[in-house]
Amino acid sequence: MEEFVLAGDLGGTNLRVAAVDVTGRLLFRAEADTPRCSDGRKIVETAADLANQCREKLGSDPRAFGFAIPAIMAAEQGRIFSSPNLPELAGYELADSLRSQLGLTVILENDANAAAIGEYWLGASKGARTSICVTLGTGVGGGMIINGELHSGPDGTAGEVGHICVEPLGPPCGCGSNGCLEQFSSASAIVRMARELIDEYPDSALVSTEGFDALQVFRYGMEGDPLCVEVFRRAGAYLGIALAGLINVLNPEAIVIGGGAADGWDLFIESTRSEIKKRAFLEPAERARIVRASLGSDAGIVGVAFLAFQKSGRVGRSNTL
Amino acid sequence: MEEFVLAGDLGGTNLRVAAVDVTGRLLFRAEADTPRCSDGRKIVETAADLANQCREKLGSDPRAFGFAIPAIMAAEQGRIFSSPNLPELAGYELADSLRSQLGLTVILENDANAAAIGEYWLGASKGARTSICVTLGTGVGGGMIINGELHSGPDGTAGEVGHICVEPLGPPCGCGSNGCLEQFSSASAIVRMARELIDEYPDSALVSTEGFDALQVFRYGMEGDPLCVEVFRRAGAYLGIALAGLINVLNPEAIVIGGGAADGWDLFIESTRSEIKKRAFLEPAERARIVRASLGSDAGIVGVAFLAFQKSGRVGRSNTL
Repeated sequence: MEEFVLAGDLGGTNLRVAAVDVTGRLLFRAEADTPRCSDGRKIVETAADLANQCREKLGSDPRAFGFAIPAIMAAEQGRIFSSPNLPELAGYELADSLRSQLGLTVILENDANAAAIGEYWLGASKGARTSICVTLGTGVGGGMIINGELHSGPDGTAGEVGHICVEPLGPPCGCGSNGCLEQFSSASAIVRMARELIDEYPDSALVSTEGFDALQVFRYGMEGDPLCVEVFRRAGAYLGIALAGLINVLNPEAIVIGGGAADGWDLFIESTRSEIKKRAFLEPAERARIVRASLGSDAGIVGVAFLAFQKSGRVGRSNTL
Repeated sequence: MEEFVLAGDLGGTNLRVAAVDVTGRLLFRAEADTPRCSDGRKIVETAADLANQCREKLGSDPRAFGFAIPAIMAAEQGRIFSSPNLPELAGYELADSLRSQLGLTVILENDANAAAIGEYWLGASKGARTSICVTLGTGVGGGMIINGELHSGPDGTAGEVGHICVEPLGPPCGCGSNGCLEQFSSASAIVRMARELIDEYPDSALVSTEGFDALQVFRYGMEGDPLCVEVFRRAGAYLGIALAGLINVLNPEAIVIGGGAADGWDLFIESTRSEIKKRAFLEPAERARIVRASLGSDAGIVGVAFLAFQKSGRVGRSNTL
């Protein structure tokens, strides 16, 4: 009988659970809409339902359940501090509740941290013992692997790369600061910057595009629309400013860039690299490979699967983080 | 016979060597001017002379020689990349040369890294398993302890907190970037900012002070001179911007601030704390103790003494980093 764990990824839109073997292969996937209600109970019910689908399919028992969630938490204690996109999770005893529903060891991890582990185990930063994973989505998230270990810090809050200040008097951020990286290099920032600059580009295709999103800014940019090109250049330059600081402070071997807005790679990466070259010391800048995430939306699932195997004592030497 | 190591600290002005016991106590100190010449030979001769004074005084043999030096280097290999204040060290085989002169195991470490270890072993960040040490001197240096280990990175360049960009279009920095923290929060930046602002403060005591230094800016500031107060407020605010980013990314338990310009503590720390409060997430901001370095100019010596004991297998469980 093949050994496996269950690994889930809770997004704002979908909840996915997969059965994953010890090599990181996804054996079976189940998916549902993320339920909305005033507390986390419906999320637990849906996750348990998907988990049971996997169990039935595999016909045997998993060793543990790992769950990647969009929340700031103390992972060790399973205590959830806050979850901007799923506020009902804050303070909810998610781990305990899942544990009693499933009868399994449950491991929670922040989704960006989980993605960093996934990319380090089997993805773009494989083997890079100090690496940073940056997720450019609606917001900007991140996870850090330092000396071969996930670094989440005593409060589980480490890795918030999106809230490095890159422009002290810049646009206000949801976190209470101004000019955070998230205000320049996220999908929402790309839309905001395009709106801010649109009057300077009366010939831009965006002028006649109502309610455009980051994907449209990207598409017009790829066609050479100067406004869209400029917006991605700025997004990339500010990303480079933040990464140069991280390179000087942490001397990482790899920086992995993922998330939906990373699809704009061809439009932003040149200005990212150029700021890094200008602002980081030579040796660590040359050391740090800047690469695109390779596991896509499975990074989190692969990462918590790793943690679940690790927790259940099943990851051997060749697979240790 | 008491066990000891030799620990040296190479500054731009002085070279100091001490005999240090396993509890971190300095048993004997010897000091000389830092010699200047076209290569590192004179430095080795002077260090060896001071080391021999310690040996004679103690009447027995040390276990190893640890040397804190102002250089970016791969500590493991003893390879020195660059040393802005002692350029003759770049590429010089300092470790090999000391080893053959002294007949001892030699451990080199960057001085800011050594200070971070010293403060973590016996100083202000004692026991804080993730802590950052920031040195506000002529420049701004730093060292990082992550999960109880010095994090110097694969190139030994980690910890360059002074070269986090805090103002993308700010003053040019010696490193090639613009608006590095060092351009706002170092002793030299304090003098530069005072000069830049002096025309706006015709009544400042600095107006009639020729060739003032950071200490004078501090002294007038303590007497309430508005220009000097404003300069330290800015230095502190930019320090807070950089530290808030590090708090969000690393979730440290302590941040230790040392170096000569840390003497301005009473004039800058309020604006540092205020920027951290505004810009960092609540839990990690409350977690991070912001404290003054407590070992003063001995931090580097204590830190390399620890490394020397560690290297020679003499630091037991109770003293492990």
